[in-house]
Amino acid sequence: MAWRSIDYFMMAQALHQAKLGQNNTSPNPSVGCVLIKNDQILSMGHTQAAGGAHAEVMALRAAGHAAQGATAYVTLEPCSHFGKTPPCADALIAAGVTRVVAALLDPNPLVSGQGLRRLAEHGIVVEHGLMAAEALAHHQGFFSRMIRQRPWLRCKVAASLDGQIALGNGQSQWITGAAARADVQRIRARSCAMITGISTILHDDPQLNVRDFPVERQPIKVILDSQMRTPVSAKILQQGPVLIVAAQETERRLPLEAAGAQVILCPDQSGARIDLAALCGVLAARGCNEVTLEAGGTLVGAFFAARLIDELCLYQAPVLLGQGQAMAQFSLSDLSQKQVPTHIARRMVGDDQRIIMRFTDPATDWLGK
Amino acid sequence: MAWRSIDYFMMAQALHQAKLGQNNTSPNPSVGCVLIKNDQILSMGHTQAAGGAHAEVMALRAAGHAAQGATAYVTLEPCSHFGKTPPCADALIAAGVTRVVAALLDPNPLVSGQGLRRLAEHGIVVEHGLMAAEALAHHQGFFSRMIRQRPWLRCKVAASLDGQIALGNGQSQWITGAAARADVQRIRARSCAMITGISTILHDDPQLNVRDFPVERQPIKVILDSQMRTPVSAKILQQGPVLIVAAQETERRLPLEAAGAQVILCPDQSGARIDLAALCGVLAARGCNEVTLEAGGTLVGAFFAARLIDELCLYQAPVLLGQGQAMAQFSLSDLSQKQVPTHIARRMVGDDQRIIMRFTDPATDWLGK
Repeated sequence: MAWRSIDYFMMAQALHQAKLGQNNTSPNPSVGCVLIKNDQILSMGHTQAAGGAHAEVMALRAAGHAAQGATAYVTLEPCSHFGKTPPCADALIAAGVTRVVAALLDPNPLVSGQGLRRLAEHGIVVEHGLMAAEALAHHQGFFSRMIRQRPWLRCKVAASLDGQIALGNGQSQWITGAAARADVQRIRARSCAMITGISTILHDDPQLNVRDFPVERQPIKVILDSQMRTPVSAKILQQGPVLIVAAQETERRLPLEAAGAQVILCPDQSGARIDLAALCGVLAARGCNEVTLEAGGTLVGAFFAARLIDELCLYQAPVLLGQGQAMAQFSLSDLSQKQVPTHIARRMVGDDQRIIMRFTDPATDWLGK
Repeated sequence: MAWRSIDYFMMAQALHQAKLGQNNTSPNPSVGCVLIKNDQILSMGHTQAAGGAHAEVMALRAAGHAAQGATAYVTLEPCSHFGKTPPCADALIAAGVTRVVAALLDPNPLVSGQGLRRLAEHGIVVEHGLMAAEALAHHQGFFSRMIRQRPWLRCKVAASLDGQIALGNGQSQWITGAAARADVQRIRARSCAMITGISTILHDDPQLNVRDFPVERQPIKVILDSQMRTPVSAKILQQGPVLIVAAQETERRLPLEAAGAQVILCPDQSGARIDLAALCGVLAARGCNEVTLEAGGTLVGAFFAARLIDELCLYQAPVLLGQGQAMAQFSLSDLSQKQVPTHIARRMVGDDQRIIMRFTDPATDWLGK
């Protein structure tokens, strides 16, 4: 397909729209849509919170009758099935749109291509693949859930230059600066769930809320707590939803449930520890697209050892702490096993350096591109 | 002093000259000199290896009779005393130079200001302070030795993003890439001495030579070896000079001396360990201006704990190694004790990031500027 520059421009606008819904649409993907006619933008729209209108419908509503004969740019193939809302493909057909350009086909193998086929059957010109890599980077969580049946798992760490997240005595507030801590709020806001460990709960008593940021839903707070040791007085229980994941049944389930938490068992074969891969499947089944891990070095190390981390977001403070608590406590027997990113992006956030390392490359790993 | 732009330009040339001698002049400072007349450069020069001509004499020789009426720019005040060579101040006077601009006064309190005073007594216009901070950054080793009676101590570390210099089993070749390892040679070349520990000798058997780089002298290789456990077969002994620093006398002194090493005792109060601060004094007394530490996490941690590190040159590879050997094994009881640099400079060297952290700021700490 030979795309014209106006195609790129319009899809870039659609992607910008898509990002507006990023913190609110899950389990649905946050799609963006732009309607144009005679090279002029008629309207734009993005997916609303679950149950609300999808991007195409938002844009069609805004355009009204002018949508007749328009071209629609969408970041993801329009749906052709009834979910909580009617199919977007039907809405585009009814409005008289004559060309639809999608960045990506639907990742769900059961419906992929059906939306465009339905449009084509009604005489609409359909094209796809424009800015697919950019759209995939935006829709990584939804694609991960559909293709791998697990969320995109991001690990957030705040550490010193020598890789320490706390002193030996546990002191950790604060290693990174205010700007880095504010940046973390942005990550939490786009996360469907936040995972932490019982050690962090017992030691830091965090809330893991999105603060200083307007969101319509708080992420599910997931506590990995093999033996249900979370105190009913923990601050994290004050604002739901909270999911406590244990490895074995204990008599502490009832008080925790009474305190508002949901408690599930997800044991590994030994029965004593939590099966981390299975947990990722559980979160995907609950509609989590992007999940962020904020935990101590033991749990972070376990996720790394299991090769479940897709992205590390490391805030590195320009200080040395010596030997305290290491950020990722896994161990290797050979250097060839080292965790090597496929992609790395560095920028300064205040005095700290934010280093985003990706260990999964959606375009290559999922689409073979 | 209101400097003109030509002054800055000429002093920058003098500094560039000074850097040409960086790897060869110790214990003398590597000075640069530019002679100009009618705003045109007559000649330039830099200090030769110890015993050879100083920068001023090199430039005067090249200019010949044209030096009459010239202005001399020098990075450091000309000497007024007889060392291995006659005083440069006298040479400038004899050549008929009429103005001398020095970036810095001599740091040696016994002679500071005397060179310029001698010039002024002969009717020469003298000025100083032009680009003093830049010149001080270049002459940091000589100033450190003169002012603090210890060398400028640089620590070089090659580590992963999570602060590990080796796996738990000791494997460490290679964490950083070829470009970073080549950059280390540049650092070794400018070092008067390389310090390492007995663990590194026993485990890695390094040579610590300057390779792939033309140098007129190899750095003194200093092994911190409390109990004189260095094997006489160690590769480091094959090419001198080697200084073994022990804490107590053992019968292994004679075979080590027979193998070409010099052996000295430098015990702390306990008598069991080496006094690191005293060792720095010993190296300064031996004329070492800049010294580089390349060692394991224990020794690096001990130097950091003693607050003796002026500069950390960290090559950080974009990989994670989990829990292996931590780069700096000291421990803190409060975050307020964290090691915070006064200055940090980052750049990519191949795929690795080189992070230079300075814990000493010569301009502020030594000159109060």
